[in-house]
Amino acid sequence: MNITGESLIGASCIKGAGADFFAFDPAAGKDLEPAFHTAGKAEIDCACELARIAFDPYRATDPETRARFLESIAHHIIELGDQLIERAMQESGLPRARLEGERGRTVGQLRLFAEVLREGSWQEARIDPALPERQPLPRVDLRLRMIGLGPVAVFGASNFPLAFSVAGGDTAAALAAGCPVVVKAHPAHPGTSELVGRAIQRAVAEAGLPEGVFSLLTGVGNQLGAELVRHPAIQAVGFTGSRQGGLALMAVAAARPQPIPVYAEMSSINPVFLLPHALAEKAEALAAGFVDSLLLGVGQFCTNPGLVLALAGPDLERFSATAAEQLAQRHAGTMLSAGIQRAYEQGVGRLAGNRHARQLSHGIASETGGKGVPALFSAGAEDFLTDPQLSEEVFGPASLLIACKDVAQMHEVAERLEGQLTATLQMSDGDHALARDLLPVLERKVGRILANGFPTGVEVSYSMVHGGPFPATSDSRGTSVGTAAIQRFLRPVSYQNLPQTLLPAAIQDGNPLAIWQRINGQLKK
Amino acid sequence: MNITGESLIGASCIKGAGADFFAFDPAAGKDLEPAFHTAGKAEIDCACELARIAFDPYRATDPETRARFLESIAHHIIELGDQLIERAMQESGLPRARLEGERGRTVGQLRLFAEVLREGSWQEARIDPALPERQPLPRVDLRLRMIGLGPVAVFGASNFPLAFSVAGGDTAAALAAGCPVVVKAHPAHPGTSELVGRAIQRAVAEAGLPEGVFSLLTGVGNQLGAELVRHPAIQAVGFTGSRQGGLALMAVAAARPQPIPVYAEMSSINPVFLLPHALAEKAEALAAGFVDSLLLGVGQFCTNPGLVLALAGPDLERFSATAAEQLAQRHAGTMLSAGIQRAYEQGVGRLAGNRHARQLSHGIASETGGKGVPALFSAGAEDFLTDPQLSEEVFGPASLLIACKDVAQMHEVAERLEGQLTATLQMSDGDHALARDLLPVLERKVGRILANGFPTGVEVSYSMVHGGPFPATSDSRGTSVGTAAIQRFLRPVSYQNLPQTLLPAAIQDGNPLAIWQRINGQLKK
Repeated sequence: MNITGESLIGASCIKGAGADFFAFDPAAGKDLEPAFHTAGKAEIDCACELARIAFDPYRATDPETRARFLESIAHHIIELGDQLIERAMQESGLPRARLEGERGRTVGQLRLFAEVLREGSWQEARIDPALPERQPLPRVDLRLRMIGLGPVAVFGASNFPLAFSVAGGDTAAALAAGCPVVVKAHPAHPGTSELVGRAIQRAVAEAGLPEGVFSLLTGVGNQLGAELVRHPAIQAVGFTGSRQGGLALMAVAAARPQPIPVYAEMSSINPVFLLPHALAEKAEALAAGFVDSLLLGVGQFCTNPGLVLALAGPDLERFSATAAEQLAQRHAGTMLSAGIQRAYEQGVGRLAGNRHARQLSHGIASETGGKGVPALFSAGAEDFLTDPQLSEEVFGPASLLIACKDVAQMHEVAERLEGQLTATLQMSDGDHALARDLLPVLERKVGRILANGFPTGVEVSYSMVHGGPFPATSDSRGTSVGTAAIQRFLRPVSYQNLPQTLLPAAIQDGNPLAIWQRINGQLKK
Repeated sequence: MNITGESLIGASCIKGAGADFFAFDPAAGKDLEPAFHTAGKAEIDCACELARIAFDPYRATDPETRARFLESIAHHIIELGDQLIERAMQESGLPRARLEGERGRTVGQLRLFAEVLREGSWQEARIDPALPERQPLPRVDLRLRMIGLGPVAVFGASNFPLAFSVAGGDTAAALAAGCPVVVKAHPAHPGTSELVGRAIQRAVAEAGLPEGVFSLLTGVGNQLGAELVRHPAIQAVGFTGSRQGGLALMAVAAARPQPIPVYAEMSSINPVFLLPHALAEKAEALAAGFVDSLLLGVGQFCTNPGLVLALAGPDLERFSATAAEQLAQRHAGTMLSAGIQRAYEQGVGRLAGNRHARQLSHGIASETGGKGVPALFSAGAEDFLTDPQLSEEVFGPASLLIACKDVAQMHEVAERLEGQLTATLQMSDGDHALARDLLPVLERKVGRILANGFPTGVEVSYSMVHGGPFPATSDSRGTSVGTAAIQRFLRPVSYQNLPQTLLPAAIQDGNPLAIWQRINGQLKK
C-alpha cells in the first residue's frame, strides 16, 4: 500500500493545506519519505462534519454489525502484513518482536470489543414496567439504555504506534460505543498511522457504513489538535501523552461553549513498595526483576516503575547494589523520537543536579550518543516529601529509590503521592499486615494495585483499569485499556411510556437481542 | 427539636463565624426565627478534614452497614414528624400535601439505595482468573471493583427542600457509594436543612460511623460554596440550581490544582412535541394536561414544560385557545423565594417585551402582588431559530408555544435545541413515522424521552435518567435521580495477583457477598 502523506477524510484522501513534515527514523537518525501534509482548518471541519452526519446512522446499526466492523478492521490491519511492521520499526526504533506483539494486542482488543458488543451488558438495559394500580400514583413504564456520546477525537500516543494509536484502545472503545472517530495521528509515526487509517477506511467502506465513521488527520503542531477539540461536533476526547499536552486539551475542552469530557492519560511514576519481609527474602531477585521492568522498551511505558520505596537498612542496600550493578551492564537504547530523547536527558539531568538525589548507577552509553542511557538514583524519604522535583515523571529508563526510616514514613510517602496508574507491593506472607495498612491509601491513589510483579505489562481484559486519579489521568472514572473503556463514551437515556415499536431493541419486551436486562432492579436474561 | 442556626460539623454543632441571616416565609412575607450563622473558612476546613479522615473507614464498612445507615436516616427523618413539614411549608411556601409527598420520596430514595447496596451490582465486581499456561505469556489474576471517589460536596436545591436537598438524591447516592458528604444548605430553607441534618447526624452517631461522614454548612453568599468546592479534600460536587450557579462551580472545580467532577443539574425548557395526529384527535385534552403540568408547584420544576412545538394550523389554534382559556382561570401562586419570584417576573417581562413573542394568556394575579402569575406566549419557528432569547429558561409557570410551518421545520427546531432533561412526544398511532424520525435527534438532546405524558413527575427508580447534555447538566454521563445516580461517585480499581486475604470481599473467590460477578466476561452469581 502506498503511503501518500494525506489525511483520510471519510472516504477521501486529502493533501492537507498546512506545513509539510517528514517521519524520522530515530535509529538511523534520518528523515523518511514521503512528505506528510498537515491538515488545515478545512480538513478538520470536513472530518468533524462527516462524523456528525455519520453519528445517528452509525449508532443505529445493530451491535452485531459493529462487532463485525471491528473484526474487519482487525483483519485489514493483519492484511497490511510486513509493510506495517517495517514502517513502524523505522518510525519508532522499536524492535520487530515488540511491534508484532503490539499488533497482536491491537487486533486482539478490536476483537475483544466485538465480544463486548455481542454480550450486550454495555447497553445497561433496564426496564421498570408500569404499575397502573400503584397508590397514591400509578407508575409509568420506564426503560433505560446507553447511547454513544457523539463523535470522539482520539490522539495517537507516541509510545505505542499501534495499540494506543489510530486503531488503538480509544478508537476501538469509541467505535464499539457507536461513536464516529476522528484520529489525530501522532507525528512520530505518521506512516504507520496512515497505513492503519487506510485499513479502517477500507473496513468502513466494505461494511457500507457512513464514511464519516472514521477520519484520520495528519500533521505537526498543537494547532491541529486544539482545533479538533474545539470543533462543536466533537463530544469527547481520548488522549495518551504528556501531562502538558493533556492539560492543554482539558483547558480547550472546558473553555468550549459546550464543555466535553476529556480522557487524558498523562503521567505516572508507578511506585513499587518493597515490603520488609519480601525484601529480606529476595532482595537480589527483586532487583533483577525491577531492572528488567525498568528497561523494557527503553523505559517508554506509562507504567514504568519510576519510584521504588523501601525501609532503609542492609536489605535495601543489597537491593540497591544489585540493581545498580545490573543496570550498569545494560546498554543505552534508541528512544522513540528525538523529542522524547531530549526530554529524557533533561529529566535525568535534573535528577543528577538535584542536591537530594544521588546517582547510584547508569547504563552503557552508545558510542555515537543519542540513545537513552538507563539511570538509577536514590534519595531519602524526608527529601522526597519536601522536594516536588523528585516526584516528577522522567519518561524513560530512569528510576528513583526512596529509603524510608520506618513504616510510618513509608505510609506518609504513600499518602503524599500524586495520582498514579499503578502501585506495586512486593510482599511475602509476613508483610500482609503492612500491605493491609497501605491498601486503602493506594486505592485512593491509583487505578491498579499489583502484588509481586512489576507494573509494565497491561493485560487487555475485563478487569483491567489503566487509569487513575489526577494527574495520572484527567478522569479517574474511566480506563483506557480493557473492556470497561467503552463506558467512557456512553451516556444513559431513559424512555417513558414509549410504544414497543418505537423502543430500541435492547429494551423491548421479549428481549430480542437476548442480552442482560435489569427488570425492576433484577438482572435477567 | 430545636433549630439553632448552627452548622453541623461532624458530631458538633458550631455557630458559623460569618454573616447572620434569617429564613424567609414567602407566603407571609416575613423573616422567620431564629438567626442562622454563615459558616466561615474554619468551619469549612473542619468539615472537609473530618470528611477526609472518615473516607477510608466509611468506605471500608460493608454494604449492609451502609444500607442500614441509609434506612436509619430515613427513620430519623420520619421521626422529625410534623415539625419538619411545618418548617418546610413556612420556608418554601409549598403546600402540606406536596411536602408530605416529597418527604415520602426522600425516605423512599434512601431505602432504594439501601436495596441497591445489598444487590451489589454497583460494585461492578469482575474477575479474570490467572492463565498460567497461556502462550506466549501467562495471564495474571486480575480483578476489578468500584470504590467511592472521596468526600462529596452537595448543594441543596431551592425547589425541593427535602428530595434534592440535605438528605436528597445526591446525598443518598454519595453515601451509598461510600463517600462522606458535606452539604451546603440552601439559604431558602435553612431550618428545614438543619432539622434533616440533625437527623443524619443522629444516624451517623447511632451507627458508630466516623463523625466526618456527614457535615452541614449553613450560610448565605457564593463564597461558602466556592471555598467548599476548592477544598482539596472534596473529590466531587453535586448541585441542582441555576445555570449561572452551576457554571460558576464548574469553573472553580476545573481551576483546582486537581480538577474534580461536577454534577450540576442546571436548566431545561423540556420541549413538548404535539405530533399532528394526536393534536388533531385531542387538542383540548392535551391543552388541559399541559396547563396542569405547567402550573404544578407554581411551575418550579426542573422538568417544567417551558416549550411546546406543533405544526401551525387549526388544530394548534384549538390547543392554544384552550390552553390560554384554562390558564387565564388559574391563580398566581406563592413562589419559593423572593429571588425566584423576581427572576420569574424578569423572565416573563423579557418574553413580553420580545418582538417575536406574543402573549396568549396570563393567570389571575393576586391582589397583593408578589406571586407567580402563569403566562403563556407564542412565537413562530423561524423566530425561535434566530432569537436565542426565546430558548432561555424562565423558571416558573411560563411556557412558549412554537408554530412550525411543516415537519421539516419541526425537525430543524429539534436539531437546534440545547441539551435538555426531557423531551415529550404527544402522539397517536398515525404519528409513529414522524416520532421515529425525531427520536434519534431527541436522544442526542435529552436524558429522558416521554410519550403521551408530561415531563413533570420524575419517578425514583432503576431506569430513571434525570440528566442530559449540557447545559441541562454539566455532565451527560450521569443522572441525579434513580439508582444509576450512585455511579457518579464511583471509580474502578483493579487488583493484580493479590492474595485472597487481602482482596475486597466483592471480588474474592467464593463470592462471600453473593453478588453478581463478571468472571472472564460472563455474569455469574
